[in-house]
Formats: sequence, C-alpha cells, structure tokens
Amino acid sequence: MTGIAIMGAGRMAKVHAAAIKDAGAKVAVIYDPVLAAAEILAADTGAIVAQTSAEAMEHPDVDAIMIATSSDTHIELLYQAVETGKPVLCEKPLASSYSDSRAFIAKVGEAAAKKVFLGFNRRFDASHAGVREAVHAGQVGRLEQLTITSRDPFPPHLDYIPRSGGLFRDMMIHDFDMARSIVGKTIVSVTAHGSSMVDPEIGKLGDVDTASVTMIAEDGTIITILNSRRCAFGFDQRIEAFGAEGMVMSDNPRESGFRSFTKEAPGTDAPLLGFFMERYGPSYTDEIKLFLDCAKEGRDMPVNAIDGLMAAYLAEAATASLKQGKTIHLTGPDQEFDV
Amino acid sequence: MTGIAIMGAGRMAKVHAAAIKDAGAKVAVIYDPVLAAAEILAADTGAIVAQTSAEAMEHPDVDAIMIATSSDTHIELLYQAVETGKPVLCEKPLASSYSDSRAFIAKVGEAAAKKVFLGFNRRFDASHAGVREAVHAGQVGRLEQLTITSRDPFPPHLDYIPRSGGLFRDMMIHDFDMARSIVGKTIVSVTAHGSSMVDPEIGKLGDVDTASVTMIAEDGTIITILNSRRCAFGFDQRIEAFGAEGMVMSDNPRESGFRSFTKEAPGTDAPLLGFFMERYGPSYTDEIKLFLDCAKEGRDMPVNAIDGLMAAYLAEAATASLKQGKTIHLTGPDQEFDV
Amino acid sequence: MTGIAIMGAGRMAKVHAAAIKDAGAKVAVIYDPVLAAAEILAADTGAIVAQTSAEAMEHPDVDAIMIATSSDTHIELLYQAVETGKPVLCEKPLASSYSDSRAFIAKVGEAAAKKVFLGFNRRFDASHAGVREAVHAGQVGRLEQLTITSRDPFPPHLDYIPRSGGLFRDMMIHDFDMARSIVGKTIVSVTAHGSSMVDPEIGKLGDVDTASVTMIAEDGTIITILNSRRCAFGFDQRIEAFGAEGMVMSDNPRESGFRSFTKEAPGTDAPLLGFFMERYGPSYTDEIKLFLDCAKEGRDMPVNAIDGLMAAYLAEAATASLKQGKTIHLTGPDQEFDV
Amino acid sequence: MTGIAIMGAGRMAKVHAAAIKDAGAKVAVIYDPVLAAAEILAADTGAIVAQTSAEAMEHPDVDAIMIATSSDTHIELLYQAVETGKPVLCEKPLASSYSDSRAFIAKVGEAAAKKVFLGFNRRFDASHAGVREAVHAGQVGRLEQLTITSRDPFPPHLDYIPRSGGLFRDMMIHDFDMARSIVGKTIVSVTAHGSSMVDPEIGKLGDVDTASVTMIAEDGTIITILNSRRCAFGFDQRIEAFGAEGMVMSDNPRESGFRSFTKEAPGTDAPLLGFFMERYGPSYTDEIKLFLDCAKEGRDMPVNAIDGLMAAYLAEAATASLKQGKTIHLTGPDQEFDV
Repeated sequence: MTGIAIMGAGRMAKVHAAAIKDAGAKVAVIYDPVLAAAEILAADTGAIVAQTSAEAMEHPDVDAIMIATSSDTHIELLYQAVETGKPVLCEKPLASSYSDSRAFIAKVGEAAAKKVFLGFNRRFDASHAGVREAVHAGQVGRLEQLTITSRDPFPPHLDYIPRSGGLFRDMMIHDFDMARSIVGKTIVSVTAHGSSMVDPEIGKLGDVDTASVTMIAEDGTIITILNSRRCAFGFDQRIEAFGAEGMVMSDNPRESGFRSFTKEAPGTDAPLLGFFMERYGPSYTDEIKLFLDCAKEGRDMPVNAIDGLMAAYLAEAATASLKQGKTIHLTGPDQEFDV
Repeated sequence: MTGIAIMGAGRMAKVHAAAIKDAGAKVAVIYDPVLAAAEILAADTGAIVAQTSAEAMEHPDVDAIMIATSSDTHIELLYQAVETGKPVLCEKPLASSYSDSRAFIAKVGEAAAKKVFLGFNRRFDASHAGVREAVHAGQVGRLEQLTITSRDPFPPHLDYIPRSGGLFRDMMIHDFDMARSIVGKTIVSVTAHGSSMVDPEIGKLGDVDTASVTMIAEDGTIITILNSRRCAFGFDQRIEAFGAEGMVMSDNPRESGFRSFTKEAPGTDAPLLGFFMERYGPSYTDEIKLFLDCAKEGRDMPVNAIDGLMAAYLAEAATASLKQGKTIHLTGPDQEFDV
Repeated sequence: MTGIAIMGAGRMAKVHAAAIKDAGAKVAVIYDPVLAAAEILAADTGAIVAQTSAEAMEHPDVDAIMIATSSDTHIELLYQAVETGKPVLCEKPLASSYSDSRAFIAKVGEAAAKKVFLGFNRRFDASHAGVREAVHAGQVGRLEQLTITSRDPFPPHLDYIPRSGGLFRDMMIHDFDMARSIVGKTIVSVTAHGSSMVDPEIGKLGDVDTASVTMIAEDGTIITILNSRRCAFGFDQRIEAFGAEGMVMSDNPRESGFRSFTKEAPGTDAPLLGFFMERYGPSYTDEIKLFLDCAKEGRDMPVNAIDGLMAAYLAEAATASLKQGKTIHLTGPDQEFDV
Repeated sequence: MTGIAIMGAGRMAKVHAAAIKDAGAKVAVIYDPVLAAAEILAADTGAIVAQTSAEAMEHPDVDAIMIATSSDTHIELLYQAVETGKPVLCEKPLASSYSDSRAFIAKVGEAAAKKVFLGFNRRFDASHAGVREAVHAGQVGRLEQLTITSRDPFPPHLDYIPRSGGLFRDMMIHDFDMARSIVGKTIVSVTAHGSSMVDPEIGKLGDVDTASVTMIAEDGTIITILNSRRCAFGFDQRIEAFGAEGMVMSDNPRESGFRSFTKEAPGTDAPLLGFFMERYGPSYTDEIKLFLDCAKEGRDMPVNAIDGLMAAYLAEAATASLKQGKTIHLTGPDQEFDV
C-alpha cells in the first residue's frame, strides 16, 4: 500500500487524510509544526509523527508527499519535496505571492514542475468534469461562450480578508483554473469588475466580495466568471459551456431526489449540497487516485505547478484590471503588473 | 367562414364560443332554454338567438352543430342533431345514463356514431398528446405500464355530487378515455378502489373522492388511474407511459419559467396552471379545428360517440367493481352491471 | 371598442393586429406605402385602408395609433403621431440613429415622450416579468448580480447585418431595456466584448455575433449580458437576478410538459418555444392591453420613449466600448461617443 | 471499536463489510461454508476466519453479528445468533418461507424479535427517508395516496427465477416494507395484478415480471406499487406521497448535475444512479450506524424481525391475490393463504 507523508495536520490535511484512506493508500507519516495537532491526526490514521518536514519526507515508508499546510509555507516545503525526487501533491496555491510561484518554476524547470500535482480538486467534480469532457469531445462543437458562477454560502471571517490576497487570488483562482482546463486555448485579455456589496467591512479592507471577470481567448471565446462571497441558498457552483452545436451545463447537484409540493411552493427541490466538503468531497479522493496513478507510471501530472502558475497569473491580471479600471492584455507569465 | 350553432349558453358554451373564434369559425346561432343566457352570449359573439333547438340546427347559416348544454339534455339533442345530417360536436358525456348511450349507438348505428365528435378535449393537450404520439410511434417500445394521475384543485359543490353519477362517471371518465386512446388495445378487466378522504360529506352521499383503478389490457399492459377531488398544489394532471425501451411522461406544465431560490426553499418552480381552463384551454381550439377539418372532408371523427360509449363502459365497470369489491372482467359494451 | 390605426402592414404589423384582436380592440385603419400589403391585412382584420399616414391617424374611428413600419420610418411617423394628441404605441427602436432619438425627446419634451408607449414587449413575458416583480418586491433582498442570456436560434440574413446598426443596437437593445427595468438604478459604466464566431462573414461586415457586456450600477450591482446570434437548441432567453437573500430566475419555458426517458437520454425535456412569436407572442397582447389602459386613464406609459432613448444610449456606449477596447463611464444621454 | 462477525462472504457480505468500515466499526471474524471466500474477505478487512458459525458468533472480539449468507440459511443462523444474546443484523428476508418467518417470531417472542435488525436498507436512502419523515411530520397533512414505483434496470438470470419465490416475495418485498414504514397504519386489503411482458420465459416459469399491487389502509389510504423487472433508462425508484395539504416525492437522484442541450434533445439530465449499489450504497452505512447505536443503547431495532414478518405477510397476500384473481382481505399474520 502506498505510504504518504502529509505536511500539515489542519483542516485540509484531515480532508486529504480521509481521501487517502478512501483511495486505498495509507497515511504513513505526519508533520506539523504544532506537534499536538500532528499527534491527533496520527492517532486517527495510524500514522507516525515526524519531528521535522525533512524527517517526514525522507522516511522510508513514504512513497509520496502531500503538502497541506497553511498557504504561506507551501513554497518552502515544495522546494524541499521536489529535492527528494518523490511524487508531490501540493494544495493550492503554489506560493503566497505570484513572484514566488514564478521563481519556483524558473528554479526547478518546467519538467520538474509538471511532476508536481497541484490540488485544483474541482477539476474532478463529476458535474464539472462532465462539462470539460463534453467540450473536449466536441459535443458542443466549437466553444464560443463559457460562463462560470461560483458563490460561497457565507463570507470568511473578516480577519482572514487581509491575508487572503483578495477575492481574485483566493476564491476566483479555482474558476481561473476551471476556465483554462475547459477552454484549452491561450487567454489574451482579462477585464475585472468588483464591488463590496455583501459586507461593507470587506470593502474597507480594500477587497471586493462580488465580482465579475471577462476573459477573451485567442480564438474569440468569451469567458465570464461571476463570484460572490455569500449566497443565501447555499454553495452555488455552476458552469455553462455554449458552442456552435449546443450547450452543456454543470448544474448544482442536490442533497437528494426529495421534492415537495405545497400550496405556497408547488414544486421545491431538495437543498444544494452544503459547502465544499459536501459538494467537492468525492473529488479529493479522485484527485488522490489520479495522483497515485500518475506517480506510479511516472507521467506528468495532468494538473501541475504550471497550471498553478497560470491560474495565479490570471488572478494577478484580474487584480491589476480591477485596480487600474481597464482591460489587461496578456503577454505571458513574465508580464509585470501594477497591483 | 363556417357557421356553428351552439346548443347551450352556459359555462361550457362560452368556452366553446371562444374556441370557435380562435379556430377561425363563427358562432352563427345560439339556443338555450334560458333565453336571457342565449342573448348575452349572442351579444358577445355576434350570433343570432333561436327560439328552439330545431330552429338553431336547421338555420341556413349553420354548417355544424355544437351541443354544450347540461349533461341530461345531450342525448335528446344528439338524436335531433344527427337527423339534420350536419356535423355534430357533443360535449361529454354522450348521455346521462350508460343505457341511454348504448341505445343511441344501437339506434343510429356505428357509421353515424363515428360522425359525432365527442368532446374529450384532453386528448388535444400538447403534453398528453405528446405521450400518445410517442407511444404510437413506438418510442417506448411495447407499452407495459400506463399510469394516469388526475387531481382537481378542489371538490365540486356538495349539491353537485348526487347528480354527478359518481367520481368514476363524472371525473375519471376523462382518464378512461385517455387510457383507451394511448393503449389502443382492448381492456379486459377493471378493478376499482375508493375512499372518502377529502370530505366525509361526499362519503355520506354514497360517493368516493379518492380513487384508484387498475385495468388490464388484452396483452397484459397494466393501467393505473389515480384520482382525487382535491389537490393542495393545484390541478395535478400527469401521465407516465412505460415500455420495453423507455418511458414518456406528461408532466404538469407551469405558469412560466420563473424559479426562485431562497434559504428556506432553494429551488422552487412556478405554479401549476390553475384549473382546466388554464391547463386545457388551448385544447378546445385544437379540438374545434380538428372537428371542422374532419367535417369538411367527411371523415369519421377521431374521437367519436363510440369512444364516448367505451369510456362510459369502463366507468360503469369501475362503479360496479367498487360496489361489489371485486375485479370486473369485461365482455363488451353489452355487458350488464349491478351498480 | 377602441379603434386603432396601424402604420405598416408587414410582419410586425400582423403580429400587432392579432394582439389587438386578442386584447379586445379593433384594427380600424391601416396605412402602408405598399398599398397591396395594406389591403391584404385590411381584408384579414376588417379594417379600412388609408392612402396616407395622416389620413390614417386622423380618421375619426381611430382612438390610438400603432407604428409598426420599418425602423427607419419610425421617427417621422412619431412626430406626426404625437401631433394628433392621440395615444401612440411605437415599435422599437424610437429612431434609426441615436442622435435622432435624442432630438425627438428634446423636441417633444419629456412629458410628451412619456406618453409614447415603446414596444419593449419582452417586459411583459410572464417569466421575465416574474423576475422583475420579485426583485422590486424585495424577494431577493438587495440586488447584487443580474445576468441576462439572450441567444437567437439562427442569425439574420447577411444582407440585414449592414443596416442593423450592429448587434448591440439591434439585438442587445432588448436586454439593455430589460436590465434597466429590473435594476431600477442608474448605470454608471459599460464594458463590451465581442467576437465573430458564428459566421466569419458577419465579422467581415464589421459586426460581432457573439458578445458580452458588463455594466455597473451606481450602487455596485454587476450586470452581465450574453448574446449570440445563433443557438443550436433554440431561442435561449434567460435571466438570473441574485441578491442578498436569494435568487430568482426566468428559465426557458418549454413547449409542453412532455418528457422522455431512454437508455441514451434518460430524462429529456420538451423543446424550447421556437422563436420570438412562440416565446413572446402572448406578451404582445399584454402590451396592447396595458397601452390601452394607460391611454384611457391618461397615465404616462410604463415603458415609453425615454426608456427607448436610455436603452439606445447603453447600446451606443457598448458599441463605443467595443470599438475603443475600454470601459465607457456614463455621464448621461447627452454624452457623445466615438463610434 | 465495535467488532462484528459476518456470516457469509459473498456479494452482500462484501457490501456490508465496506459499510462496517465506513461506519467506523470493524469486521472481526468471518464465517462462510466456502472457506476460500471467507479467507479472501478476511484478507481485505483484516478479520480472522472462523471454522464454524458458532465459533464466529461466540468469539470474544465479536460484539455484534451480521447475517449476510444466502437467503435459505438466514433462519437457522438467526436462531443461533439470537441464542448468543448479542445484537443481530440480518439481511432480508427473515426466512425463505413465510411459515418459517412466522414460526421464528412465535418461538423467540416479540421482545426478542424486536432486537433483530432486519436489513431493509432502502429505508435509509436519503430521498425515501425524506418522504417518510415529511409524511410523519405532517407536511402533507393526512396521507391519502401513496405511490411507489420500483423498476430494476434488467431482470435477474432466468435460473434465479424458480428459487426467487416470485416477484412479490423477492422484489416487491422492499416496497411492501417501504409502504408500511411511510403509511404507519394497518393495511386491510391487497389486490395484485401481474403480467409477463419483459421476458416470456419468466412467465413460463410461473412468475410475472410486471406487476401492480393496490393496498388499502384502515383509514382508506390507497397505496399503489408498480414493479418491473427491467427498465431501459436505469434503476427507477420513486415514491409519491399525496395528502390533504400537498405532496412529497422521492425522485430518482442523478449521477451528477451535468445537463446537455442539443438540437435533438434540448435539455437532457445526467443518467440515473446505476443499480442498487450506486443508488442505495450510502444507505448500508447509515443502516449499520443505526444498528450499532441501538445495540449500544439496548433499544428495540427501528426495523426489525416483526417488520420482516409483516412485509412477507403482504407479499404472501399479493401472491395469493394474483393466483386467485381477487382482493385479499387481511386479518393478521396468522392468516393462511392458498398460494
């Protein structure tokens, strides 16, 4: 059974530990600077606790490394993990700054970067993956318009906002990656709009909570992303891909097939799946399985550090577009932004 | 423009007068024993008022006759109308008793009976007609199970119950005809169950308000009809036709494509179409058009007095089944029932 | 019965003639420069034919005037119609150029302009009206994002493109009006993107066939409009209004409640309503009724020449935004654009 | 961690072994007359293999017993398991004949019978449980009509038919239990109809493959169950509960929220969940959890051997009704049937 070292013992580490078990692999070693946290997760999973990240990564029972610590420590652990030559799965984002992401790719090189699996788990959601596969299989003909709606049920705590990097880097980053993976073409411009409508305090902190981004691909495909930090009716995660021969849609799955019919509401569906664990939970398991398969076969990871860089590049451009109030024309990931 | 004489000036006469106009024909003459009612409808439609039914039917501007009086007068007017040799459309039922219906067919003969259009307008509802056409076109393969759900929004006035003939003859009659038109095979047995659950007063009057009928066709197809005199969420009119290769369904159409999403009800459809005029209104116009076309071409009516007899025969059998508490095996419309 | 003079005897005139009849009014006089066309429609409706527009408008049987000629003749007839002091309903657009629209309002004054009903019939579509009413009634709380998708089943003939004024003025004009009517706030910026993806010939003619516009309202509400000149699965007309307390949606109504379930497609809905007559047909009747009511009561028209001007203003801004490749900040309808 | 002894190592044993793990318990011992099968499942689960059922049940690591062998061996193992005094979960059916089931209850007594959890796992399906809970909570007011549709994707192998006991005892047994659990009232009559339409070979073997049962509850509630051994579009499992104040429905959940829109099929949902493991898989885990909770607290099992008896009683009555061609009036589980 493949043994995995998890860096981190917080919320995402627990999510991944459960997915590792479901995927038929084993959490072998856990490292977390907060030893007590590592010990709790170790007890739950039957793993051992390492005193240092190096000890964890280099442990002989460890076949693959998972980085699931806080975002600001990803990049340092990534450098260290890549060194070991073992397969690495890193939670998004690659790094806490765009320049650090760029430097990482430059340093390790494209070949190594493609061996780092980047945790854009939403790619493995059944509904979203259905859209991507249908588009790639030509079911809608030539793609012309792609619309992604992504709304969280409620905003994060206010004290998270200043260190989030802003809505585009923190929340819309998933949608940038999703757009790239579905469109499969170079994106040539980014235009962002944003407002603070959910909570004026978010606006005072210099961020937006309601946003829209329009991107144009090299062939003219128009991509629209709509985000909100709060949605009264739940976790609203939808995609529409419209093309010459039709449309495919990823609609919100529901808790069950329960429906009710009353005088007041003569046809009501079951609730949406609560938040990201309910909606995207199964995607983590599929992600790990794919990671382990690619690792075993020595293949490039289908979603890797380059994808992490490119999504961050779009987030950077959107941030710049909003700040400057104009469309940003993209020239490539070396482009410098005034943000 | 084809001129039509309407017998009756009540609710159904008004419905038909509007449909006649929509169908591009003209109400030429109106007869109603209550002269004042005839005059009001005549004023609305530009028709003239006749003093007797004979005068109305024989008027030179009259090309076709519509019988839309109260149920107990249908049969007498039908005999009279058939005499004129003009095309006749008669509201359901053919007669207020099954024996009268049977006698009518016997008297005028099958050929003449097939020239009388019987007003089972629901056959022309777009959703229901879609089911029938799909079944007849073989889209579900061999039909195996047919389920018809038919629920009124609210029960009729209690004083109507005693003269209604009972739920099977008054309400389920539409579903018996619908079943016959979709199945297109001889029905060999009828088993009825019924309860008085909506209003105990209906039970005290010897009728049921909640009922289920199972019928078996000669090839084994199982037909289920569910009726209720009251439905809190509106006029519930649905059909499911299940066969070897799939299923087609006539679901309740909605007032519009409006949907709402709130915390309490995260996905609610628009209301059902209110009652029979909202749901089945357009079917009356299609009915008249088809009647006029068949009349012009001298064809047998696609739904005619024989269909009226056969639906009444099933209602009679269901009434007997409920009374006797057993399955009734059908031998043909000459069968006598203890009801 | 209110008598109406129709200017024009073409496609839209016929649509309106049918709606006038359904609304219980009467086509009294018809004028069309092509006399033969006027005579055909007159024969269908029982109207008389006038030799000049003035004769039609001033005829004593005429209580109200409907302008349904080709777009380039609207403005001249409007000046003439306003002169008569009779109520006027003018098909959109007000004029074939924005400057002409502006001049019209300036000349007749706001008070008179508000007495001219402008034919934005989609406002009266049951699904769309449901969204507007729910938003105005506060059912979604404060409105934050409004998304309008509008796709025609197939593009117009190529020879129409050069005289259409371009997609924003010709097709998206309906969506600009819809957005204004739902949002009910001043719009402060317009950013347009467009591609020619449906037919490269449209691009060669200097127009786009696939477009997206983002508008920001004074309170930060983000409005997105998506258009395509062609949609394989039919006339795709949807609206989503998202706010602090939920969302309301106008989904595409279907031809009927028919659904089919096969091995290959285990749950398929009935087709969308074909094109604008199937989808928006009933809205023309409701429009006329409202027009007649307002005329009778001497009220300002709820959708009037000012609304026509403002929608045209947004179309002008979008055209400028696309040409200039930047966001246009709106200062008011006197703003001059480089288009 | 609770240790469980599984009797059996076949398909259902594997399903339960996975559910036991998901529920946080442990398969401690496995017994199967086919030792090789036991060893394989033991290797997968980390359990030990017992040589006899007694050894397995009495093993000190065993806190609870699961019977998942072939149906004909349930009853003997049940007697043995009840002897141990440990909590028992028995797969349905209780016994392979109705008289054996009845004898078991008589022998062990009602109190002990209520401590045996009977594996009607569909009760724990989220959609179906939603219907039951809504009905019990009074959301539809007084229940009046209950309709259960249950169709398998494809029939079992023909050689299974003779030892299945027939459709009512083998397949509809789930629906009888579901009806009992939702209605919560005494059922007073059963009327069955059946045909062999899916495969004439099934008919030659004396069984039906298409069936309908109508049951009446003491208060008049009408219950309809529709079964088919084959369904082209998948595993069709739906419930409608209609009452005085509305209706709740358990519609078929879908694989995902994917939808496609093409010219040919302008609105198609994702496939149904394949067969019972896809649809009802999660219900096995919830079943085990509930079993363990009840065991720990010493409570009667919420679905127990009495429920197994009562569902079998209805199946017996339905079998008799079909054979005799008449309604069977129920007098209680001591009733003898001519089947």
